[in-house]
Amino acid sequence: MRHILIIGIGAGNPEHITVQAINALNRADVLFIPTKGAKRSELAELRREICARYVTRADSRTIEFAVPVRRTEGRAYIESVDDWHASIAATYEALLESELADGQTGAFLVWGDPMLYDSTIRIVERVKARGRIGFGFDVIPGITSLQALCASHRIPLNLVGKPVEITTGRRLAESFPHRCETAVVMLDGEQAFQKIEDPDAEIYWGAYLGSPEEIVISGRLADVKEEILKTRAAARERVGWIMDIYLLRKGADFDE
Amino acid sequence: MRHILIIGIGAGNPEHITVQAINALNRADVLFIPTKGAKRSELAELRREICARYVTRADSRTIEFAVPVRRTEGRAYIESVDDWHASIAATYEALLESELADGQTGAFLVWGDPMLYDSTIRIVERVKARGRIGFGFDVIPGITSLQALCASHRIPLNLVGKPVEITTGRRLAESFPHRCETAVVMLDGEQAFQKIEDPDAEIYWGAYLGSPEEIVISGRLADVKEEILKTRAAARERVGWIMDIYLLRKGADFDE
Ligand SMILES: C[S@@+](CC[C@H](N)C(=O)[O-])C[C@H]1O[C@@H](n2cnc3c(N)ncnc32)[C@H](O)[C@@H]1O
Ligand SMILES: C[S@@+](CC[C@H](N)C(=O)[O-])C[C@H]1O[C@@H](n2cnc3c(N)ncnc32)[C@H](O)[C@@H]1O
Repeated sequence: MRHILIIGIGAGNPEHITVQAINALNRADVLFIPTKGAKRSELAELRREICARYVTRADSRTIEFAVPVRRTEGRAYIESVDDWHASIAATYEALLESELADGQTGAFLVWGDPMLYDSTIRIVERVKARGRIGFGFDVIPGITSLQALCASHRIPLNLVGKPVEITTGRRLAESFPHRCETAVVMLDGEQAFQKIEDPDAEIYWGAYLGSPEEIVISGRLADVKEEILKTRAAARERVGWIMDIYLLRKGADFDE
Repeated sequence: MRHILIIGIGAGNPEHITVQAINALNRADVLFIPTKGAKRSELAELRREICARYVTRADSRTIEFAVPVRRTEGRAYIESVDDWHASIAATYEALLESELADGQTGAFLVWGDPMLYDSTIRIVERVKARGRIGFGFDVIPGITSLQALCASHRIPLNLVGKPVEITTGRRLAESFPHRCETAVVMLDGEQAFQKIEDPDAEIYWGAYLGSPEEIVISGRLADVKEEILKTRAAARERVGWIMDIYLLRKGADFDE
Protein backbone atom coordinates (compact mmCIF):
# COMPACT_ATOMS: atom_id res chain seq x y z
CA MET A 1 0.00 0.00 0.00
CA ARG A 2 1.04 3.57 -0.60
CA HIS A 3 1.40 6.03 2.26
CA ILE A 4 0.93 9.80 2.25
CA LEU A 5 2.38 12.32 4.67
CA ILE A 6 0.73 15.73 4.81
CA ILE A 7 3.49 17.85 6.30
CA GLY A 8 3.16 21.35 7.72
CA ILE A 9 6.33 23.28 6.90
CA GLY A 10 5.67 26.62 8.61
CA ALA A 11 4.45 29.83 7.01
CA GLY A 12 7.61 31.50 5.77
CA ASN A 13 10.51 30.95 8.17
CA PRO A 14 12.45 27.80 7.26
CA GLU A 15 13.49 27.48 10.93
CA HIS A 16 9.86 27.02 11.93
CA ILE A 17 10.04 23.44 10.72
CA THR A 18 9.74 20.78 13.42
CA VAL A 19 11.98 17.77 14.01
CA GLN A 20 8.95 15.58 13.28
CA ALA A 21 8.48 17.29 9.89
CA ILE A 22 12.17 16.89 9.02
CA ASN A 23 11.98 13.19 9.85
CA ALA A 24 8.81 12.88 7.77
CA LEU A 25 10.44 14.63 4.80
CA ASN A 26 13.19 12.05 5.00
CA ARG A 27 10.74 9.15 5.11
CA ALA A 28 9.22 10.20 1.79
CA ASP A 29 10.29 8.57 -1.46
CA VAL A 30 8.55 11.32 -3.41
CA LEU A 31 8.03 14.97 -2.41
CA PHE A 32 5.11 16.71 -4.08
CA ILE A 33 5.51 20.47 -4.39
CA PRO A 34 2.63 22.59 -5.65
CA THR A 35 3.71 25.53 -7.81
CA LYS A 36 0.86 27.97 -7.91
CA GLY A 37 1.96 30.11 -10.83
CA ALA A 38 4.60 32.72 -11.49
CA LYS A 39 3.50 35.45 -9.07
CA ARG A 40 3.75 33.34 -6.00
CA SER A 41 6.98 31.65 -6.98
CA GLU A 42 8.44 32.69 -3.62
CA LEU A 43 6.09 30.19 -2.00
CA ALA A 44 7.39 27.35 -4.13
CA GLU A 45 10.81 28.78 -3.32
CA LEU A 46 10.36 28.20 0.44
CA ARG A 47 9.34 24.62 -0.22
CA ARG A 48 12.44 24.07 -2.37
CA GLU A 49 14.64 25.69 0.25
CA ILE A 50 13.20 23.46 2.95
CA CYS A 51 13.91 20.37 0.88
CA ALA A 52 17.43 21.58 0.14
CA ARG A 53 18.15 22.28 3.82
CA TYR A 54 16.49 19.37 5.53
CA VAL A 55 16.16 16.44 3.14
CA THR A 56 19.29 14.40 3.75
CA ARG A 57 18.44 11.16 1.98
CA ALA A 58 19.79 11.29 -1.54
CA ASP A 59 17.34 9.02 -3.30
CA SER A 60 14.04 10.88 -2.96
CA ARG A 61 12.43 12.51 -5.96
CA THR A 62 10.77 15.91 -6.08
CA ILE A 63 7.72 16.36 -8.28
CA GLU A 64 6.48 19.87 -8.89
CA PHE A 65 2.90 20.10 -10.08
CA ALA A 66 0.50 22.86 -11.06
CA VAL A 67 -2.54 23.27 -8.83
CA PRO A 68 -5.75 23.70 -10.87
CA VAL A 69 -7.10 27.24 -10.70
CA ARG A 70 -10.47 27.97 -9.09
CA ARG A 71 -13.10 29.07 -11.58
CA THR A 72 -15.42 31.65 -10.08
CA GLU A 73 -17.40 33.17 -12.98
CA GLY A 74 -21.12 32.85 -12.50
CA ARG A 75 -20.79 30.60 -9.46
CA ALA A 76 -21.55 30.78 -5.76
CA TYR A 77 -18.43 30.64 -3.56
CA ILE A 78 -19.22 27.24 -2.09
CA GLU A 79 -20.02 25.74 -5.48
CA SER A 80 -16.81 27.00 -6.99
CA VAL A 81 -14.72 25.66 -4.08
CA ASP A 82 -16.41 22.27 -4.26
CA ASP A 83 -15.66 21.96 -8.00
CA TRP A 84 -12.14 23.19 -7.45
CA HIS A 85 -11.48 20.56 -4.76
CA ALA A 86 -12.85 17.88 -7.09
CA SER A 87 -10.41 18.91 -9.77
CA ILE A 88 -7.45 19.04 -7.35
CA ALA A 89 -8.45 15.57 -6.14
CA ALA A 90 -8.27 14.32 -9.73
CA THR A 91 -4.80 15.88 -10.06
CA TYR A 92 -3.64 14.23 -6.82
CA GLU A 93 -5.02 10.88 -7.88
CA ALA A 94 -3.21 11.02 -11.21
CA LEU A 95 0.03 12.05 -9.46
CA LEU A 96 -0.18 9.25 -6.93
CA GLU A 97 -0.93 6.74 -9.62
CA SER A 98 1.89 7.77 -11.92
CA GLU A 99 4.59 8.86 -9.47
CA LEU A 100 4.19 6.67 -6.40
CA ALA A 101 4.77 2.94 -6.60
CA ASP A 102 2.99 0.52 -4.33
CA GLY A 103 4.72 0.44 -0.94
CA GLN A 104 6.20 3.91 -1.38
CA THR A 105 5.62 7.03 0.71
CA GLY A 106 4.75 10.41 -0.77
CA ALA A 107 4.76 13.75 1.01
CA PHE A 108 2.71 16.87 0.39
CA LEU A 109 4.40 19.98 1.80
CA VAL A 110 1.75 22.31 3.20
CA TRP A 111 2.16 26.00 4.03
CA GLY A 112 1.82 26.59 7.78
CA ASP A 113 -0.24 23.84 9.39
CA PRO A 114 -2.46 21.59 7.26
CA MET A 115 -5.35 22.07 9.72
CA LEU A 116 -5.66 25.84 9.23
CA TYR A 117 -7.52 27.17 6.18
CA ASP A 118 -5.94 24.59 3.94
CA SER A 119 -7.66 21.84 2.00
CA THR A 120 -4.95 19.23 1.53
CA ILE A 121 -6.47 16.96 4.19
CA ARG A 122 -9.94 17.29 2.63
CA ILE A 123 -8.61 16.60 -0.83
CA VAL A 124 -6.63 13.55 0.26
CA GLU A 125 -9.84 12.30 1.93
CA ARG A 126 -11.63 12.82 -1.39
CA VAL A 127 -9.04 10.81 -3.27
CA LYS A 128 -9.45 8.05 -0.69
CA ALA A 129 -13.24 8.18 -1.05
CA ARG A 130 -12.97 7.84 -4.85
CA GLY A 131 -11.55 4.43 -4.05
CA ARG A 132 -9.31 3.99 -7.08
CA ILE A 133 -6.05 4.06 -5.10
CA GLY A 134 -5.55 2.53 -1.69
CA PHE A 135 -3.35 4.40 0.77
CA GLY A 136 -2.95 5.40 4.39
CA PHE A 137 -2.06 8.91 5.47
CA ASP A 138 -0.73 10.95 8.39
CA VAL A 139 -0.77 14.63 9.23
CA ILE A 140 2.24 16.44 10.69
CA PRO A 141 1.53 19.84 12.26
CA GLY A 142 3.49 22.97 11.39
CA ILE A 143 3.81 26.48 12.80
CA THR A 144 0.96 28.62 11.42
CA SER A 145 0.97 32.23 10.29
CA LEU A 146 -1.17 32.98 13.36
CA GLN A 147 1.66 31.81 15.60
CA ALA A 148 4.24 33.71 13.55
CA LEU A 149 2.08 36.83 13.99
CA CYS A 150 1.85 36.51 17.78
CA ALA A 151 5.55 35.66 18.13
CA SER A 152 6.66 38.64 16.04
CA HIS A 153 4.44 41.00 18.04
CA ARG A 154 5.36 39.15 21.25
CA ILE A 155 1.73 38.99 22.34
CA PRO A 156 -0.59 36.34 23.76
CA LEU A 157 -3.41 35.35 21.39
CA ASN A 158 -6.14 35.49 24.03
CA LEU A 159 -6.97 37.79 26.92
CA VAL A 160 -6.78 35.93 30.27
CA GLY A 161 -9.43 33.16 30.23
CA LYS A 162 -11.23 34.70 27.24
CA PRO A 163 -12.16 33.14 23.88
CA VAL A 164 -10.70 33.94 20.46
CA GLU A 165 -12.29 33.75 17.05
CA ILE A 166 -10.32 32.85 13.94
CA THR A 167 -12.11 34.07 10.85
CA THR A 168 -11.80 35.39 7.30
CA GLY A 169 -12.06 38.90 5.87
CA ARG A 170 -15.50 38.09 4.44
CA ARG A 171 -16.87 37.16 7.85
CA LEU A 172 -15.11 39.58 10.18
CA ALA A 173 -18.08 41.94 10.45
CA GLU A 174 -20.17 39.11 11.93
CA SER A 175 -17.90 38.69 14.91
CA PHE A 176 -15.77 41.64 15.97
CA PRO A 177 -16.20 43.55 18.22
CA HIS A 178 -19.67 42.48 19.40
CA ARG A 179 -19.21 38.70 19.50
CA CYS A 180 -15.63 38.34 20.75
CA GLU A 181 -12.83 40.36 22.31
CA THR A 182 -10.16 38.90 20.02
CA ALA A 183 -10.48 38.07 16.35
CA VAL A 184 -7.72 36.79 14.07
CA VAL A 185 -8.34 37.47 10.41
CA MET A 186 -6.84 35.47 7.57
CA LEU A 187 -7.58 35.27 3.85
CA ASP A 188 -8.63 38.90 3.76
CA GLY A 189 -8.73 40.30 0.22
CA GLU A 190 -10.73 43.37 1.20
CA GLN A 191 -8.92 44.74 4.28
CA ALA A 192 -12.05 44.23 6.33
CA PHE A 193 -10.47 45.99 9.33
CA GLN A 194 -11.18 49.31 7.58
CA LYS A 195 -14.84 48.95 8.34
CA ILE A 196 -14.48 48.27 12.06
CA GLU A 197 -15.59 51.38 13.89
CA ASP A 198 -14.51 50.91 17.45
CA PRO A 199 -12.56 53.59 19.27
CA ASP A 200 -10.89 51.05 21.57
CA ALA A 201 -9.94 48.37 19.08
CA GLU A 202 -6.25 47.54 18.72
CA ILE A 203 -4.72 45.84 15.70
CA TYR A 204 -1.61 43.68 15.32
CA TRP A 205 -0.90 43.27 11.63
CA GLY A 206 1.79 41.27 9.83
CA ALA A 207 2.74 40.52 6.23
CA TYR A 208 5.25 38.02 4.77
CA LEU A 209 5.76 36.77 8.33
CA GLY A 210 8.89 34.76 8.94
CA SER A 211 10.43 35.79 5.63
CA PRO A 212 13.09 38.45 5.01
CA GLU A 213 10.27 40.73 3.73
CA GLU A 214 8.38 40.57 7.07
CA ILE A 215 6.52 43.75 8.02
CA VAL A 216 4.62 44.27 11.28
CA ILE A 217 2.53 47.22 12.45
CA SER A 218 0.47 47.54 15.62
CA GLY A 219 -1.47 50.18 17.52
CA ARG A 220 -4.94 51.62 18.02
CA LEU A 221 -6.87 50.70 14.91
CA ALA A 222 -8.04 54.27 14.35
CA ASP A 223 -4.43 55.50 14.56
CA VAL A 224 -2.68 52.94 12.34
CA LYS A 225 -5.40 51.96 9.85
CA GLU A 226 -4.12 54.32 7.15
CA GLU A 227 -0.50 53.35 7.71
CA ILE A 228 -1.39 49.67 7.28
CA LEU A 229 -3.38 50.33 4.10
CA LYS A 230 -0.53 52.35 2.59
CA THR A 231 2.20 49.95 3.66
CA ARG A 232 0.21 46.99 2.38
CA ALA A 233 -0.46 48.58 -1.02
CA ALA A 234 3.18 49.59 -1.46
CA ALA A 235 4.50 46.17 -0.44
CA ARG A 236 2.08 44.40 -2.73
CA GLU A 237 3.21 46.60 -5.60
CA ARG A 238 6.88 46.02 -4.85
CA VAL A 239 6.81 42.26 -4.21
CA GLY A 240 4.09 41.42 -6.72
CA TRP A 241 1.86 39.63 -4.16
CA ILE A 242 1.08 39.80 -0.46
CA MET A 243 0.06 37.49 2.36
CA ASP A 244 -1.10 39.19 5.52
CA ILE A 245 -2.89 38.34 8.74
CA TYR A 246 -3.99 40.39 11.71
CA LEU A 247 -5.37 40.24 15.20
CA LEU A 248 -8.01 42.66 16.47
CA ARG A 249 -8.50 43.07 20.19
CA LYS A 250 -10.79 45.00 22.42
CA GLY A 251 -10.44 45.31 26.17
CA ALA A 252 -7.70 44.26 28.55
CA ASP A 253 -6.63 41.18 30.46
CA PHE A 254 -8.35 41.77 33.74
CA ASP A 255 -11.61 43.32 32.56
CA GLU A 256 -14.64 41.35 33.76
CA MET B 1 21.70 43.99 29.13
CA ARG B 2 20.06 40.64 29.84
CA HIS B 3 17.99 38.87 27.19
CA ILE B 4 15.09 36.50 27.64
CA LEU B 5 13.82 33.88 25.20
CA ILE B 6 10.29 32.59 25.71
CA ILE B 7 10.41 29.29 23.87
CA GLY B 8 7.45 27.13 22.86
CA ILE B 9 8.49 23.47 23.14
CA GLY B 10 5.34 21.70 21.92
CA ALA B 11 2.64 20.10 24.01
CA GLY B 12 3.95 16.61 24.70
CA ASN B 13 5.79 15.21 21.69
CA PRO B 14 9.51 16.06 21.89
CA GLU B 15 9.66 15.89 18.06
CA HIS B 16 7.26 18.81 17.83
CA ILE B 17 10.11 21.15 18.65
CA THR B 18 11.17 23.51 15.86
CA VAL B 19 14.65 24.16 14.54
CA GLN B 20 14.24 27.77 15.72
CA ALA B 21 13.47 26.56 19.25
CA ILE B 22 16.48 24.21 19.26
CA ASN B 23 18.72 27.07 18.18
CA ALA B 24 17.19 29.31 20.86
CA LEU B 25 17.74 26.66 23.55
CA ASN B 26 21.38 26.64 22.52
CA ARG B 27 21.67 30.42 22.69
CA ALA B 28 20.61 30.43 26.34
CA ASP B 29 23.18 30.59 29.12
CA VAL B 30 20.49 29.64 31.63
CA LEU B 31 17.41 27.46 31.10
CA PHE B 32 14.55 28.09 33.52
CA ILE B 33 12.28 25.10 34.06
CA PRO B 34 9.11 25.46 36.09
CA THR B 35 8.26 22.43 38.23
CA LYS B 36 4.63 22.65 39.15
CA GLY B 37 4.52 20.10 41.96
CA ALA B 38 4.71 16.34 42.27
CA LYS B 39 1.55 15.33 40.38
CA ARG B 40 2.53 16.94 37.16
CA SER B 41 6.12 15.85 37.27
CA GLU B 42 5.69 14.41 33.76
CA LEU B 43 5.44 17.96 32.49
CA ALA B 44 8.77 18.90 34.02
CA GLU B 45 9.97 15.57 32.62
CA LEU B 46 9.25 16.62 29.00
CA ARG B 47 11.16 19.83 29.55
CA ARG B 48 14.14 17.90 30.93
CA GLU B 49 13.99 15.43 28.06
CA ILE B 50 13.96 18.25 25.54
CA CYS B 51 17.01 19.81 27.12
CA ALA B 52 18.77 16.43 27.20
CA ARG B 53 18.00 15.76 23.53
CA TYR B 54 18.49 19.15 21.97
CA VAL B 55 20.81 21.27 24.11
CA THR B 56 24.24 20.62 22.65
CA ARG B 57 26.26 23.39 24.27
CA ALA B 58 27.86 22.06 27.41
CA ASP B 59 28.13 25.24 29.44
CA SER B 60 24.50 26.20 29.99
CA ARG B 61 22.91 25.89 33.40
CA THR B 62 19.43 24.57 34.17
CA ILE B 63 17.50 26.17 37.00
CA GLU B 64 14.34 24.46 38.18
CA PHE B 65 11.98 26.65 40.13
CA ALA B 66 8.62 26.26 41.84
CA VAL B 67 5.77 28.26 40.36
CA PRO B 68 3.69 30.00 43.06
CA VAL B 69 0.29 28.41 43.51
CA ARG B 70 -2.88 30.34 42.70
CA ARG B 71 -4.93 31.18 45.78
CA THR B 72 -8.62 31.06 45.06
CA GLU B 73 -10.38 31.10 48.47
CA GLY B 74 -12.81 33.95 48.77
CA ARG B 75 -11.73 35.58 45.53
CA ALA B 76 -13.17 36.28 42.11
CA TYR B 77 -11.42 34.42 39.29
CA ILE B 78 -9.93 37.54 37.72
CA GLU B 79 -8.71 38.88 41.06
CA SER B 80 -7.05 35.62 41.95
CA VAL B 81 -5.31 35.39 38.55
CA ASP B 82 -4.09 38.96 38.80
CA ASP B 83 -2.55 38.34 42.24
CA TRP B 84 -1.11 35.08 41.06
CA HIS B 85 0.59 36.73 38.08
CA ALA B 86 2.00 39.40 40.40
CA SER B 87 3.55 36.74 42.58
CA ILE B 88 4.98 34.82 39.60
CA ALA B 89 6.42 38.10 38.33
CA ALA B 90 8.19 38.56 41.67
CA THR B 91 9.59 35.02 41.37
CA TYR B 92 10.83 35.69 37.84
CA GLU B 93 12.41 38.96 38.87
CA ALA B 94 14.27 37.30 41.72
CA LEU B 95 15.42 34.49 39.42
CA LEU B 96 16.67 36.86 36.75
CA GLU B 97 18.46 38.96 39.33
CA SER B 98 20.20 36.07 41.05
CA GLU B 99 20.78 33.64 38.18
CA LEU B 100 21.34 35.74 35.08
CA ALA B 101 24.37 38.02 34.81
CA ASP B 102 24.33 41.16 32.75
CA GLY B 103 24.85 40.31 29.07
CA GLN B 104 23.56 36.77 29.50
CA THR B 105 20.56 35.11 27.88
CA GLY B 106 17.94 33.16 29.80
CA ALA B 107 15.25 30.89 28.37
CA PHE B 108 11.81 30.02 29.69
CA LEU B 109 10.54 26.75 28.24
CA VAL B 110 6.80 27.03 27.65
CA TRP B 111 4.35 24.17 27.08
CA GLY B 112 2.91 24.30 23.54
CA ASP B 113 3.04 27.84 22.19
CA PRO B 114 3.52 30.82 24.54
CA MET B 115 0.65 32.67 22.82
CA LEU B 116 -2.06 30.14 23.69
CA TYR B 117 -3.60 30.21 27.17
CA ASP B 118 -0.24 30.77 28.78
CA SER B 119 0.89 33.76 30.79
CA THR B 120 4.66 33.72 30.45
CA ILE B 121 4.61 36.63 27.98
CA ARG B 122 2.33 38.65 30.27
CA ILE B 123 4.47 37.94 33.29
CA VAL B 124 7.69 38.85 31.54
CA GLU B 125 5.99 42.11 30.49
CA ARG B 126 5.11 42.69 34.15
CA VAL B 127 8.70 42.17 35.24
CA LYS B 128 9.75 44.67 32.56
CA ALA B 129 7.13 47.15 33.73
CA ARG B 130 8.36 46.90 37.35
CA GLY B 131 11.54 48.42 35.96
CA ARG B 132 14.03 46.94 38.40
CA ILE B 133 15.80 44.81 35.78
CA GLY B 134 16.49 45.85 32.22
CA PHE B 135 16.18 43.20 29.52
CA GLY B 136 14.99 42.52 25.99
CA PHE B 137 12.95 39.49 25.06
CA ASP B 138 11.83 37.35 22.13
CA VAL B 139 9.07 34.81 21.64
CA ILE B 140 9.58 31.56 19.74
CA PRO B 141 6.40 29.75 18.66
CA GLY B 142 5.77 26.08 19.36
CA ILE B 143 3.27 23.46 18.23
CA THR B 144 0.12 23.77 20.38
CA SER B 145 -2.13 21.07 21.80
CA LEU B 146 -4.79 22.29 19.34
CA GLN B 147 -2.51 21.36 16.45
CA ALA B 148 -1.60 18.03 18.04
CA LEU B 149 -5.35 17.34 18.36
CA CYS B 150 -6.09 18.05 14.69
CA ALA B 151 -3.04 16.14 13.49
CA SER B 152 -3.87 13.05 15.54
CA HIS B 153 -7.46 13.07 14.29
CA ARG B 154 -6.24 14.05 10.80
CA ILE B 155 -8.87 16.77 10.51
CA PRO B 156 -8.95 20.40 9.39
CA LEU B 157 -9.69 22.85 12.21
CA ASN B 158 -12.25 24.87 10.24
CA LEU B 159 -15.03 24.04 7.82
CA VAL B 160 -14.33 25.55 4.36
CA GLY B 161 -14.24 29.35 4.72
CA LYS B 162 -15.89 29.22 8.17
CA PRO B 163 -14.74 30.70 11.49
CA VAL B 164 -13.55 28.80 14.57
CA GLU B 165 -13.77 29.75 18.21
CA ILE B 166 -11.13 28.75 20.73
CA THR B 167 -12.55 28.85 24.23
CA THR B 168 -12.47 27.38 27.75
CA GLY B 169 -14.78 24.91 29.50
CA ARG B 170 -16.27 27.75 31.56
CA ARG B 171 -17.31 29.67 28.46
CA LEU B 172 -18.27 26.94 26.03
CA ALA B 173 -22.01 27.31 26.61
CA GLU B 174 -21.80 30.92 25.37
CA SER B 175 -20.59 29.91 21.95
CA PHE B 176 -21.39 26.42 20.73
CA PRO B 177 -23.51 25.53 18.80
CA HIS B 178 -25.42 28.82 18.30
CA ARG B 179 -22.48 31.21 17.75
CA CYS B 180 -20.05 29.11 15.74
CA GLU B 181 -19.87 25.85 13.81
CA THR B 182 -16.51 24.85 15.30
CA ALA B 183 -15.36 25.34 18.88
CA VAL B 184 -12.09 24.15 20.39
CA VAL B 185 -12.20 23.78 24.14
CA MET B 186 -9.16 23.92 26.41
CA LEU B 187 -8.74 24.23 30.17
CA ASP B 188 -11.95 22.35 30.81
CA GLY B 189 -12.22 21.10 34.39
CA GLU B 190 -15.93 20.37 34.15
CA GLN B 191 -16.29 18.43 30.88
CA ALA B 192 -18.54 21.13 29.51
CA PHE B 193 -19.33 19.04 26.41
CA GLN B 194 -21.71 16.99 28.55
CA LYS B 195 -24.17 19.85 28.59
CA ILE B 196 -24.25 20.42 24.83
CA GLU B 197 -27.56 19.11 23.56
CA ASP B 198 -27.26 19.01 19.83
CA PRO B 199 -28.14 15.91 17.87
CA ASP B 200 -25.74 16.78 15.05
CA ALA B 201 -22.69 17.83 17.01
CA GLU B 202 -19.51 15.84 16.50
CA ILE B 203 -16.63 15.73 18.96
CA TYR B 204 -12.91 15.09 18.46
CA TRP B 205 -11.33 14.57 21.86
CA GLY B 206 -7.70 13.99 22.85
CA ALA B 207 -5.76 13.56 26.09
CA TYR B 208 -1.99 13.48 26.73
CA LEU B 209 -1.54 14.32 23.06
CA GLY B 210 1.88 13.66 21.62
CA SER B 211 2.95 11.58 24.60
CA PRO B 212 3.06 7.79 24.87
CA GLU B 213 -0.18 7.98 26.93
CA GLU B 214 -2.08 9.69 24.07
CA ILE B 215 -5.78 8.79 23.82
CA VAL B 216 -8.15 10.03 21.10
CA ILE B 217 -11.88 9.45 20.67
CA SER B 218 -14.21 10.91 18.06
CA GLY B 219 -17.78 10.53 16.88
CA ARG B 220 -21.28 11.94 17.28
CA LEU B 221 -21.30 13.67 20.64
CA ALA B 222 -24.46 11.85 21.73
CA ASP B 223 -22.86 8.50 20.87
CA VAL B 224 -19.41 8.93 22.42
CA LYS B 225 -20.07 11.29 25.34
CA GLU B 226 -20.24 8.48 27.91
CA GLU B 227 -17.18 6.72 26.49
CA ILE B 228 -15.16 9.93 26.77
CA LEU B 229 -16.31 10.56 30.35
CA LYS B 230 -15.41 7.01 31.40
CA THR B 231 -12.10 6.94 29.54
CA ARG B 232 -11.16 10.32 30.95
CA ALA B 233 -11.99 9.34 34.54
CA ALA B 234 -10.07 6.06 34.27
CA ALA B 235 -7.03 7.71 32.68
CA ARG B 236 -6.97 10.44 35.29
CA GLU B 237 -7.10 7.84 38.03
CA ARG B 238 -4.32 5.77 36.46
CA VAL B 239 -1.94 8.58 35.52
CA GLY B 240 -2.70 10.85 38.47
CA TRP B 241 -3.54 13.91 36.31
CA ILE B 242 -4.97 14.64 32.90
CA MET B 243 -4.70 17.25 30.15
CA ASP B 244 -7.33 17.10 27.49
CA ILE B 245 -8.68 19.22 24.68
CA TYR B 246 -11.51 18.77 22.19
CA LEU B 247 -13.10 20.15 19.10
CA LEU B 248 -16.86 20.36 18.64
CA ARG B 249 -18.29 20.72 15.17
CA LYS B 250 -21.68 21.12 13.66
CA GLY B 251 -22.46 21.00 9.96
CA ALA B 252 -20.35 20.05 6.96
CA ASP B 253 -17.89 21.69 4.61
CA PHE B 254 -20.20 22.77 1.84
CA ASP B 255 -23.26 23.80 3.83
CA GLU B 256 -24.24 27.40 3.11
C1 LIG C 1 -4.86 29.47 2.60
S1 LIG C 1 -4.42 30.19 4.13
C2 LIG C 1 -3.21 29.06 4.69
C3 LIG C 1 -2.82 29.23 6.13
C4 LIG C 1 -1.73 28.29 6.57
N1 LIG C 1 -2.15 26.89 6.49
C5 LIG C 1 -1.23 28.60 7.97
O1 LIG C 1 -1.13 27.64 8.78
O2 LIG C 1 -0.90 29.75 8.26
C6 LIG C 1 -3.50 31.61 3.61
C7 LIG C 1 -3.63 32.77 4.56
O3 LIG C 1 -2.74 32.58 5.64
C8 LIG C 1 -2.15 33.81 6.03
N2 LIG C 1 -0.69 33.69 5.88
C9 LIG C 1 -0.02 32.57 5.53
N3 LIG C 1 1.30 32.78 5.55
C10 LIG C 1 1.48 34.06 5.94
C11 LIG C 1 2.63 34.86 6.18
N4 LIG C 1 3.88 34.36 6.04
N5 LIG C 1 2.45 36.14 6.59
C12 LIG C 1 1.21 36.64 6.76
N6 LIG C 1 0.10 35.92 6.55
C13 LIG C 1 0.22 34.64 6.16
C14 LIG C 1 -2.79 34.89 5.17
O4 LIG C 1 -3.89 35.43 5.89
C15 LIG C 1 -3.24 34.11 3.97
O5 LIG C 1 -4.35 34.73 3.35
C1 LIG D 1 -2.58 26.40 30.28
S1 LIG D 1 -3.11 25.72 28.75
C2 LIG D 1 -1.60 25.73 27.86
C3 LIG D 1 -1.79 25.49 26.38
C4 LIG D 1 -0.45 25.44 25.64
N1 LIG D 1 0.24 26.73 25.69
C5 LIG D 1 -0.63 25.00 24.19
O1 LIG D 1 -0.06 25.68 23.32
O2 LIG D 1 -1.27 23.98 23.95
C6 LIG D 1 -3.34 24.04 29.20
C7 LIG D 1 -4.45 23.36 28.40
O3 LIG D 1 -3.93 22.97 27.14
C8 LIG D 1 -4.47 21.73 26.74
N2 LIG D 1 -3.34 20.79 26.57
C9 LIG D 1 -2.02 21.10 26.67
N3 LIG D 1 -1.27 20.05 26.38
C10 LIG D 1 -2.10 19.03 26.07
C11 LIG D 1 -1.91 17.70 25.66
N4 LIG D 1 -0.68 17.19 25.51
N5 LIG D 1 -3.01 16.94 25.42
C12 LIG D 1 -4.25 17.46 25.55
N6 LIG D 1 -4.48 18.71 25.94
C13 LIG D 1 -3.42 19.50 26.19
C14 LIG D 1 -5.46 21.31 27.80
O4 LIG D 1 -6.74 21.76 27.40
C15 LIG D 1 -4.98 22.08 29.01
O5 LIG D 1 -6.04 22.35 29.90
